[in-house]
Formats: sequence, C-alpha cells, structure tokens
Amino acid sequence: MTTPYEYAAQNTQRFRDELMEFLRIPSVSTDPMHKQDMLQAAGWLAGEMTRIGLEHLQVMPTNGHPVVYGDWLHAGDDRPTILIYGHYDVQPAVMEDGWLHSPFDPQIRDNRIYARGSADDKGQVMSHVKAAEALLNTYGFPVNVKYFFEGEEEIGSPNLGAFIEANRTLLAADLCVISDTGIRSLTQPSINYSLRGLMGLEITVRGPQRDMHSGNGGVLHNPAQAIAEIVAKLHLEDGRVAVPGFYEDVYTMTPDEREALKQVEVDKADWQSWMGDLPEWGEPGYSKIERIGARPTLEINGIFGGYTGEGQKTVIPAFAKAKITCRLVANQDPKKIFTQVDAFIHAIAPKTVKVEIENKGGSKAARTPIEHPGVQAAVRAFAKRWSTPVVFIPGGGSIPVVVDIQETLGIPVVLLGFSLPDAGAHGPNESFHLEMYAKAVDTIIAYLHEIATPS
Amino acid sequence: MTTPYEYAAQNTQRFRDELMEFLRIPSVSTDPMHKQDMLQAAGWLAGEMTRIGLEHLQVMPTNGHPVVYGDWLHAGDDRPTILIYGHYDVQPAVMEDGWLHSPFDPQIRDNRIYARGSADDKGQVMSHVKAAEALLNTYGFPVNVKYFFEGEEEIGSPNLGAFIEANRTLLAADLCVISDTGIRSLTQPSINYSLRGLMGLEITVRGPQRDMHSGNGGVLHNPAQAIAEIVAKLHLEDGRVAVPGFYEDVYTMTPDEREALKQVEVDKADWQSWMGDLPEWGEPGYSKIERIGARPTLEINGIFGGYTGEGQKTVIPAFAKAKITCRLVANQDPKKIFTQVDAFIHAIAPKTVKVEIENKGGSKAARTPIEHPGVQAAVRAFAKRWSTPVVFIPGGGSIPVVVDIQETLGIPVVLLGFSLPDAGAHGPNESFHLEMYAKAVDTIIAYLHEIATPS
Repeated sequence: MTTPYEYAAQNTQRFRDELMEFLRIPSVSTDPMHKQDMLQAAGWLAGEMTRIGLEHLQVMPTNGHPVVYGDWLHAGDDRPTILIYGHYDVQPAVMEDGWLHSPFDPQIRDNRIYARGSADDKGQVMSHVKAAEALLNTYGFPVNVKYFFEGEEEIGSPNLGAFIEANRTLLAADLCVISDTGIRSLTQPSINYSLRGLMGLEITVRGPQRDMHSGNGGVLHNPAQAIAEIVAKLHLEDGRVAVPGFYEDVYTMTPDEREALKQVEVDKADWQSWMGDLPEWGEPGYSKIERIGARPTLEINGIFGGYTGEGQKTVIPAFAKAKITCRLVANQDPKKIFTQVDAFIHAIAPKTVKVEIENKGGSKAARTPIEHPGVQAAVRAFAKRWSTPVVFIPGGGSIPVVVDIQETLGIPVVLLGFSLPDAGAHGPNESFHLEMYAKAVDTIIAYLHEIATPS
Repeated sequence: MTTPYEYAAQNTQRFRDELMEFLRIPSVSTDPMHKQDMLQAAGWLAGEMTRIGLEHLQVMPTNGHPVVYGDWLHAGDDRPTILIYGHYDVQPAVMEDGWLHSPFDPQIRDNRIYARGSADDKGQVMSHVKAAEALLNTYGFPVNVKYFFEGEEEIGSPNLGAFIEANRTLLAADLCVISDTGIRSLTQPSINYSLRGLMGLEITVRGPQRDMHSGNGGVLHNPAQAIAEIVAKLHLEDGRVAVPGFYEDVYTMTPDEREALKQVEVDKADWQSWMGDLPEWGEPGYSKIERIGARPTLEINGIFGGYTGEGQKTVIPAFAKAKITCRLVANQDPKKIFTQVDAFIHAIAPKTVKVEIENKGGSKAARTPIEHPGVQAAVRAFAKRWSTPVVFIPGGGSIPVVVDIQETLGIPVVLLGFSLPDAGAHGPNESFHLEMYAKAVDTIIAYLHEIATPS
C-alpha cells in the first residue's frame, strides 16, 4: 500500500499548481477594494477542502472576513482531536514596493514560488490541506482533525476572539497546531516556543487647515517636521524605547534561558541577506535573538506627510502620520502599553500642532513550554523526516489568535512553522521554497502520527 | 470710442470661459505622464495669443517643456519694450489631497474659479493676455511688448536659464513684468519688492535590502525612524535652523526696513484662515512677515517610508525619504547652503543606516528697489484702478527666473501679482477670485500706460 509520504511525492507537481492557483487570488484583508477577492479565496479554499474529503465544510461569517471550517472526526474517541489554524488573507503588495513581477502572478525561480502570501500563510495552509489529502488517500487520519482558516490575521484578527468565544463547541479540541511562523533553514528544523504580542497605534499631526505653499514657510510648525520630532523622541540614543514604564513588566530571562539562546543566535548569512554590511542596532545588553524573541520593541511601520511623488512640490502639508506597532513579550499588557505610549506622545508633542492618536488594538505574547507532549511530538516528527535535530527559538512575530485559543478554548498551541528567514514575508518578492513545501507536508503527516501515539 | 477698460468689462463672461478652458488642460510639469498635456497647454496658449492679434508666435523647444513666445512691437522706438513672463505649468493635484471636485474640472463658487493653476499661474497669465486683447481692440498698445510663458516654473525652471542665455536678442527689453505672486486682499493692493531664493534636496535613508516583517524588530535601525531622527535635528528647539553657518550670509535688515514691515504684518484673519487657533512657530526675534519675507527657512515638503495605505502593515521599510527645500534671502548662495546642509546631514546621520542626499538645484533671492521707475509706475497704476494705496511686502516664495532675467538680460523685474492669501496655491481647492481677475486685467492695462509715460 502507498504511504502518505509516497502519495505526496507522486503529486508534487499538482500540489504546486494548486498552491499557485490559490496565490492568484489577491486576498488582501486590509483593503476594502479586495472584499470580493477575500470571499473568492475563502470559497476556493472551502472547495479544495471538500474535494479532498474533509467534512462539514462551512464558510462562516464574522463581523469582518469569513472563517473557513472543515473537519474529519472518525479516528475514534480514544484518539485526540487536533485543531489546525492558518489564514488565507495576505499583506498588501504593489509593484512599486520592488516586486520583480505582479505579486499575484506567482512565478517559479530557483526552486521557489514567488508571490504575495506564498510563505505567509497560503503555502503553509496548503501544506496542511495537502497532508490531509495524502492521509485521506492512504492510511486515513490517525487523529480527529478540525481545520479553521481565518481571513483577518494580517489586520490583527479583530473578530476572531468573538468567533472562538461563540464557537467553543465546534472548535473544542485537545491541542491546536498553527503553521504561520518561521523555520531556521532548509536543513535545520526549528520550533518557536514563544511569540511576541502586539500593540498598534496611528499618530496624526495636524497643522494648517490645508496644504500651503512653502513660500509661507517660517511662521508655522510644519506637520511633516513635527511628526519627525515626535517619532525621533520615541527611542533613546542607545536604542532603548524612551516611553516611561515600557519595560517595567517584561519577563526576566533566567541565566539558563539566555545560555540556550546563544545556540540559536541570528545566523551571519541571514543577517547579511537582510542588511548587507550595515551594523546592528537596538537595545544594549542583549543578543540579536534575545532582542527579536524576548525583548519588546517599538517600530515605525509607516511615516508620511506632504508630497511623496516624483519631482518636487514646494508644499507645507496640512497633516502627517506615523503608523506604529510595539512587539510585546511575556507579562506585558497591550492596553497598559498603549496608555503609556499615548501619554508619552501627548507629553512630548509640540503645542504648535494638533496631535491625534488612534489605538489599533493588540494582543498579548504567547508561550508553550518545550516539555509539553504536543511540542515533543513535533520534535519526534522532525527527527523522522529531517536529518538534523530541531532547535528551539523564541519567535519575534505575533499571532494574536494564539492567546485567544489558549485562553478561550483552554488548550495549548504548538507552532509548526515553515517560512524561511529570507522568505520576504510582508515585503516584496515573498517566496515559499518548493523543497520546504514538500518537507512541510511530510512533517505534518509525521506529526499527526506522533501526536496520536504519545511516547 | 470704447476704452480698454470698457472692452474688458463688456467681455467678462467670455474672459472667464476662456480661462476655464485653459484650466481644463492638466499641465502638470513634474509628472512625465502629463507630457502630452504640457504640449496641449502650450499650443492652446499660442493659439489664443495669435487669435487676439499678437505676432511672431512660437512654441520654442527647450530640454524640457517648451516656452511660448509672442510679441507686438509697433509702439515706436521712443517707447519702452516690456517683457512679460508667466508660466502655463501647474503643481500636481489629486482628489485625495482634499479637493471638492476634480482639480482639472474648474467650477465657480462664491465668485471664485476653483481649479489647479487658477491662481498659480494660469489666471495671471490670462490677465495679461486679456489686457492685450482689450488694448489691441481699442487704443492699441502704448508700449512694445514681448510675452514669454514657460512650462517648468513648478519644477524650478531647470532649462530657462539656458533658454534666456540663448535668446538674449529675442527677449531684449527695458523692463520685465512678472505676475506670479500674491496680493494683500481684494481691496488692498500690494507689491512684492523681493522674493526668496530656493535650494532643494532629497534625503534617502536605506536599511534592510528589502522591506522586512516587523517581527524582526529590535536588531536593525528602521529607516522610517532614522529619517525622523535626521529631520528632527534640522531645527533647534526654538525654531531656528540647526545647520551651522545657515544664517551667516543673511542680509541684515535696517531699523527703517523693519519698521516698515510692521505696517504689513500678516493679517489676523489670514492667519486664522491658514491655521485656525494654532499658535505661531518659527525663528525667535522676528515678526511673521519678517520670517516669511526676510529670513531663510528649511521646510519638509514631504516625508515617507513604509506602509502609508489604509489599515496596518507590520513592516520595517527598506528605505525612507524626505523632500526638503530651503527658502533663501538676499546674499545667500544656494550652492553654499546645499554644501552646508549636506555636510550637516551626513554628520548627524546614524551609522546604522545608509544616507544619500540629492541636490535638486536652486536659485538666489531677488529684489527690485521700491524707488525704481518700473515699480513707481505700478504704484500709479494701482492708484488709478483701486481705492486704497499700494503697500510693499517682501515675498516669501521664489521665482528662479527673476534672477536669470536680472543677470542675463540686465533689466529690472517688477512683480505684479494677483493671487489672494487664501487662494490655496500648491494646495487643494486652489482658486482665483473673479473680481480679482477683472481688477488684474484693468491694472495691467493701466500699468502699460503708466510705464509708457514716466512721470
């Protein structure tokens, strides 16, 4: 009888084509113009899940974009039920950001699929769907599985908390698996045992009633200058965040934890692929992996005001904006952090402009202990299909739903991620490595077996 | 016999319709997409000038957009020759800037024509053309006139210096009149006796090789933050420009000059129409009109980096930019100022990012003494057609061609401007007051008579 691994190997080409079909749907959740594309992506995914034999398919409405649900519950009452989460929405992408081709026209180069969402998260969602197909066409599932894929991860999952709350019974499970994080390399498997939280805000600085001719310059505080003055004060010279109290609740790592992180310090080659020969920057006293995974940050995601097109326009803009997110670590409360940042900005803002601050919401940091059986099953699954033992890395990103699942459903979350450090998630020319796609499918199949039979 | 003033009064409606036709051509010089529109605008203007009886019409090529030339030289050798300059190009304009209707679909409200270029400078160009029409259909011209209208004023007239140099004979005249500046109010005539110079530059800050997921935040210097840090250091806390040597060549006003400026301090109502109830800002120790007209400034015309669309995108941008112009006053050299600003920015720029600075060129400040016969003729022209005597104001804007004309053609320049303080030049909902249009035509007719017969 064919094994699920053999089935996957025999269908590599088709799996790839199906992922490319999924990637052609521009499911940009943040942009109202793409509302119809969001529905199309949800429908496409539900159709694909039905076709391979998953059951009870539903495209379930929320106050925003819908959730796609499907399950297979015939493994028996003695087998655990695994809840699998992913998202079918993607970040915005336009050619001007530096794409070599249209971000929604997937192309294969150097054994990678290049397209927006290829790594984050459609490639990983499809790895689960294809693992399910391989199992359903061979041995069958060794566990009960419930899949739910949301459409609002890239905008901070504003409606998912309520959705989970309202669907506790439907989503009830023993463990949740999320594939929406990174992995060390094509040869070095890794597991994120923690994720940072998030807190977003937008600052608007207003000056003149309308854009003015800069011939009037000299008497009024230019909002583009004022936003720069505010943003420049959010960090101290040495790289620390300047907001009073920002670090006060931060979890202090033990010496053992810090020692362990030395083994997974950011790779030199990865650093160079990101930054070329530029020196590093950031909070003093911590290694790079500590600053990414175990220390909070405040990042400027966007700043703009005045004329941003080609050529010159001698204008004093009426307003300027900065989009900011903080990444938070264990024990930090997004609401408290917002209050602190908001108060600090109002305190430092010049009185010669008007300043508005909008809270864009947030989520707490999350953590699953390495000792947990769900994590140890992953260690064994990687051991089966990869030649190097897995390493453990604290994740720098945020998946708000992890906390919702842990708290509302009362189950642990295991992060089984397959995005490479140079995948370019959220940036131009995002890619998913085709060898990783195959390895992800295999690893998921192995994981579902390992979790079915705890050692 | 009909006077030219009567002719203008009888044709008000048609003059208005013709201006609106001109305004419908989106002649945005900075945008390569509008290259064809630039040619259309030049052609339209040349056609209109031919129709009313001007001679030797030419659309003359430059390395950029063409110059429109036409003349009427039959007033006799004993009469002076007046060179009249304006520009048919306009600033960029898009609905998103806050326009109430398409900026190239002129509409009349509250006795004003709203459209991009209505005040700056098509309305003023048409005031000259319509004054010429009124004279040619009645008394005839009392002086010899040469009109030249350029298409690159809004991008800093990069090719006009060479054009003037190459066409010294064609453009030879006794005096130049430029209508591309402001006027105090509908009832208070004013003349700018000086203009500020300009020096433009663009700063680019580069960090990661490509936009990165902000989950990596904490180890690299975010370019959107770094550009803010640089921009914030360009001014001191008290509003002075921080660049060493920036003020060292500035012309020092005499006590008499400062006393005279008290009479023309920025009007409270104008301030409120610009700024609402916000307090003023700027270099300490100088009045508002001094800071606008007699002191140099450094303005941020644009700042941008990262995600600037709706919603959130958790990205660390690969680069960020700031577009900057300095307004200069008498005795300041744009080349020296660029060198100073460039050196200062490189000195303050963090070493954790790459910084590039592009020189966008510049022009010196300009000045025509109030006592000059060409200015005194304007005083008499205003006295004839307005009920309040003219006041003298130092202009805060810049018209690079003024210096080129003074230096290359060796003739003085008189600034006869008709744009109201609330015209919204360079901003959304730019307007030209219809009463001002009529007064501008009348004042130009009167001026050509006054300059023909010096008192």
